Amino acid sequence: MLDLRPVFFVVGLMVAALGLIMFIPMFVDMYHDGLSWRGFGISGILSFLFGVSMALANYTPKPDLGARGAFLLTVSSWVALSAFASLPFLMEPIGLSITDAIFEATSGITTTGSTILTGLDHMPRGVLLWRAMLQWIGGIGIIVTAMAILPMLKIGGMQLFRLESSDMGEKILPRAASIAMAISLIYLGLTILCTVLYMVVGMSGFDAIAHAMTTLATGGYSTSDASMGGFMDQGADLVCIAFMMAGGMPFGMYLLMTRGDFKAPLRDPQVRAFVGIMISLIALVTLGLWAGSEYSAAEGASFWQALRLSAFNTVSIVTGTGYATTDYNSWGPFALGAFFVFMFIGGCAGSTACSIKIFRYQVAFEALRAYLFKMPRNHAVSPLRYGGAPLPESVVFSILSYFFLFFLTFAVTAIALSFIGLDPITAWSGAGSAVANVGPGLGEIIGPAGTYQSLPASAKWVLMTAMIVGRLEIITALVILNPAFWRT
Amino acid sequence: MLDLRPVFFVVGLMVAALGLIMFIPMFVDMYHDGLSWRGFGISGILSFLFGVSMALANYTPKPDLGARGAFLLTVSSWVALSAFASLPFLMEPIGLSITDAIFEATSGITTTGSTILTGLDHMPRGVLLWRAMLQWIGGIGIIVTAMAILPMLKIGGMQLFRLESSDMGEKILPRAASIAMAISLIYLGLTILCTVLYMVVGMSGFDAIAHAMTTLATGGYSTSDASMGGFMDQGADLVCIAFMMAGGMPFGMYLLMTRGDFKAPLRDPQVRAFVGIMISLIALVTLGLWAGSEYSAAEGASFWQALRLSAFNTVSIVTGTGYATTDYNSWGPFALGAFFVFMFIGGCAGSTACSIKIFRYQVAFEALRAYLFKMPRNHAVSPLRYGGAPLPESVVFSILSYFFLFFLTFAVTAIALSFIGLDPITAWSGAGSAVANVGPGLGEIIGPAGTYQSLPASAKWVLMTAMIVGRLEIITALVILNPAFWRT
Ligand SMILES: [K+]
Ligand SMILES: [K+]
Repeated sequence: MLDLRPVFFVVGLMVAALGLIMFIPMFVDMYHDGLSWRGFGISGILSFLFGVSMALANYTPKPDLGARGAFLLTVSSWVALSAFASLPFLMEPIGLSITDAIFEATSGITTTGSTILTGLDHMPRGVLLWRAMLQWIGGIGIIVTAMAILPMLKIGGMQLFRLESSDMGEKILPRAASIAMAISLIYLGLTILCTVLYMVVGMSGFDAIAHAMTTLATGGYSTSDASMGGFMDQGADLVCIAFMMAGGMPFGMYLLMTRGDFKAPLRDPQVRAFVGIMISLIALVTLGLWAGSEYSAAEGASFWQALRLSAFNTVSIVTGTGYATTDYNSWGPFALGAFFVFMFIGGCAGSTACSIKIFRYQVAFEALRAYLFKMPRNHAVSPLRYGGAPLPESVVFSILSYFFLFFLTFAVTAIALSFIGLDPITAWSGAGSAVANVGPGLGEIIGPAGTYQSLPASAKWVLMTAMIVGRLEIITALVILNPAFWRT
Repeated sequence: MLDLRPVFFVVGLMVAALGLIMFIPMFVDMYHDGLSWRGFGISGILSFLFGVSMALANYTPKPDLGARGAFLLTVSSWVALSAFASLPFLMEPIGLSITDAIFEATSGITTTGSTILTGLDHMPRGVLLWRAMLQWIGGIGIIVTAMAILPMLKIGGMQLFRLESSDMGEKILPRAASIAMAISLIYLGLTILCTVLYMVVGMSGFDAIAHAMTTLATGGYSTSDASMGGFMDQGADLVCIAFMMAGGMPFGMYLLMTRGDFKAPLRDPQVRAFVGIMISLIALVTLGLWAGSEYSAAEGASFWQALRLSAFNTVSIVTGTGYATTDYNSWGPFALGAFFVFMFIGGCAGSTACSIKIFRYQVAFEALRAYLFKMPRNHAVSPLRYGGAPLPESVVFSILSYFFLFFLTFAVTAIALSFIGLDPITAWSGAGSAVANVGPGLGEIIGPAGTYQSLPASAKWVLMTAMIVGRLEIITALVILNPAFWRT
């Protein structure tokens, strides 16, 4: 029998907490602009009261979550937080439609960063701060989910990253809380460091805090329509590159480093591959840009300029951050091809980055290497290994299934968008961008210079669904859609 | 030790046989046009002499092929036949460049059907017949490969279709020959039936033979620039729908039927799914077309017209035939989205159709169903089944690996084309069309109304490689590219 009370209890507590933190943008807005504070106050009170009531109504002395409860909690908490986080966007002076408000909140909390807002430079600061906070919370939320919950649920090979003594059962919640605390401190520390460096290169305190939050979260919401492009003069893009990379690293590695294990990054196969792949891709894009585009030698651009633009935009897309410094739609076909594919790489497991992620490619290639070796010989090879440890068959199976499901989700999303009437570039890049939580797509409409505002409401709902499914590693969301899940 | 002599011996015989059949278009051309017969004669003599010399030089009294030899034979025979089949295209009056000639031959023999020729209606009949013959030979070639060789090599789940007593070893060649004979007779019979029906609906004898060959082969080369669109008046498109479907069915099923087992189609899970999927997709496209396009009710088109166009083009793309009756680029975004995705479905295993194929989706979904059921419960389900028989884990693994490799090959091809400078629609649809052996892509350039003529030579070589890799179920080709394959 599936007991829903513990699920509702925890979701209630989360919604109440979300309500409380809405008072932060309220106070900031009162102090600065005095325009949007009422909306945040009302939304905060509503969310807090609703959340507390929900928690109280479902209180059980000994909550027993279990595997099905953990699945349900994971999915419903992201959906509920997206819904309540949208309340301030519904209120004056922003006054978005319900679809647009939920889109903006979902895109924020999943760290996708697709926006339907323009005129960011003149928005009340409360609203800008709220968008940044949503991504920041979504970022830490996914790290905790990925480290404490998904390995136990054996989602898409995440069981590779199971920490010692993380067994199934009643210990899920206390364990999640203990990991959450340590990781949150690291996350906070990195965000403060990033804020300081943004201020050093000339951002205002407010812009620095907001961008640091969305950089570490690999989220990509900005306080300016020009995104990071408006802050390049003194080198904010270089700070940003460093901290997007930091956000794409496994936070378990930082945990080991704070315990004195400074060689942890060198030992971690996904970190080594992540850095290596990034350097190769930056070199490739730089070459393409320098060889023939508006930033080529022939057009008088310096090599440094081509390298800097390539590095920023490559890191931004591969980590799934989605900031822009320039409209790379004009870089020519090679850039469109490259950036479309880069969306499907992703960062490390246990980071704020989304998409397929490095370790899944590593495992798939290891399995294929052995498979291609074995076939013409009809005898087995030595057992598969990942990072020095043997690789169980069940993990390889999970990961290959994940690839299948990822591309299926991507294709279904793109077809749905095509049927709604979007042109192929918008439909396919928008679908990829949503499932991989990147943010911008390609083309005129949703490219780095556009917004999602003009899309039909149905397309926005398709994209929101894709964002949540993608953020929860696809399988988590699909499991609860399986009718068999609900049978006793 | 890998003995290459048996491989060269068989490839030599194949090239010699190819040379001999070049005399057929030579005689047809002598009789009809008198323009291109010299080219066919010279090419035939060259191919025959080269092939016979190669076979004699590598003759061994007891040829022992083995698994590695079978891989190598499969890949090298397709490459060698493509190369020699291009000779007539190099000669007057066609006089193509080497790249274009090999492209046209490779596209023919892999049954892809992408063409670089225009002005088909005024081509010498020898050339038109040769293009049709290449596809016809390629079609029977892939059926025999898929039935007699790939199951033994355990390529991408094809071991599901292993016939009784098809063990590894020296019996590969005689067994392939015996299957080839029975299947060839069925293939010939269906081709004759199709020819007669094409003549009944008004095609000339020559057009009927040429189109019957490329219909059964799901190849798509036509004798007219208007493709099947020029023969619609009396209903040639309806005959074509029936025989494209026939080409996409498993030929093993026909073999059972000739032995009196007329319920074989009803028992075969992939045949049932193939027909069901096709009906659903036709309904979907008809709806889209009828709801809003130039063929909608509002524009005065009849429902029958919308249904007929939808059925023809859907069957043409899903089976990977690639004939066109109209330029569906103008049908709106929904059609572009649909036809792009349809390319990745394919027909049944053991047919002339290419792409991923129905049974792989069935197995992947069966595996996922069990996986999604198992995960929240932590206990196993009843063993996986396909078509009533248990599904070994190794087959599921092969098939999931196949999906990964297919999309990897597709993406690598598309990126390569993007870097060469093709626009995204041309690059992505061209890559999909080549890997899935469909033929036409989307967009102005390579869409149903265009040709591959204007692409740069480098793009043509990328596409040819993709065609051969796709035709050989990806894995067969990748195995021999693995350096470990060549180690003793
Ligand atoms: K993002
Ligand atoms: K074809």
